[in-house]
Amino acid sequence: MRAEWINPFIAATATTFEVLLECDVERGKPRLKSAVQPQFEISGLMSMQGEASGLVVVSLHRDVAVEATRFIVGHASGAIDADVVDVICEMTNMIAGGANNQLEQLSMQIGLPSVITGKNHVVNYPSGVATITIPCETKWGPFCVDASIKARPSRVLREPTASV
Amino acid sequence: MRAEWINPFIAATATTFEVLLECDVERGKPRLKSAVQPQFEISGLMSMQGEASGLVVVSLHRDVAVEATRFIVGHASGAIDADVVDVICEMTNMIAGGANNQLEQLSMQIGLPSVITGKNHVVNYPSGVATITIPCETKWGPFCVDASIKARPSRVLREPTASV
Repeated sequence: MRAEWINPFIAATATTFEVLLECDVERGKPRLKSAVQPQFEISGLMSMQGEASGLVVVSLHRDVAVEATRFIVGHASGAIDADVVDVICEMTNMIAGGANNQLEQLSMQIGLPSVITGKNHVVNYPSGVATITIPCETKWGPFCVDASIKARPSRVLREPTASV
Repeated sequence: MRAEWINPFIAATATTFEVLLECDVERGKPRLKSAVQPQFEISGLMSMQGEASGLVVVSLHRDVAVEATRFIVGHASGAIDADVVDVICEMTNMIAGGANNQLEQLSMQIGLPSVITGKNHVVNYPSGVATITIPCETKWGPFCVDASIKARPSRVLREPTASV
């Protein structure tokens, strides 16, 4: 995971919360994620593939997921229901898609999102894949965005400078 | 999810357990997965992307994951540790990769695997994505393979007959 690949995720997260939810995000310092750090109760996952392989995990405190759903749908039951799943899928889609637009040199496509729910679930990565976690805070509570990108060793990445 | 897309996952699952683990799989009847069915304690996830988008979830009873790791690594602590995560990543990779080889008309690539751990975690899908679950039993205990494939509406799939 190269350092310059982190900023697109930071920018896409702020834009998504601003545009989708009219909600400011206070961002902490990105750091390397430790091996078995549990997620918040709701995690949206999105895979990205092309000249590199990526995985984005948007993990939210239950209150953030519920209040985001209330903002979008107009009501929320308080339970983790199909509305919450769809809102978190859309949020994950926008963050991964927005970051991907800024990483065009990796020629990746985004895939099908999924949403993991459950207290103390952990997203584990295979050995050798470094993950950066970006801690965030909102008026509704905390969430984080975890990003892993692994270059395919068999391919030469097209650097932006190569096209000049 | 077309019916003819299920058999490649069934075949790849049997082959993976036979080749990787020398372990027979007794398969139940594939069925549509209900919305909020919890997974077993350990789930390997793999996304597939190309002319269609797919997601494969290999969800295993803890005993199956631990005994598979003992078979591959030669020992197992009984905990869900980095060895277990790597073995389940490899298993998920082989099942998704094997199925993908038989679905070449969809021109998909497989991505980075991840492993979700946690009791009663649930993998949720966005509205409109049907998931087939294939229940399986081994000498070590139960597991299941869940497969979702969604054709991209904007693209015409290259059918095998088109190349004749």
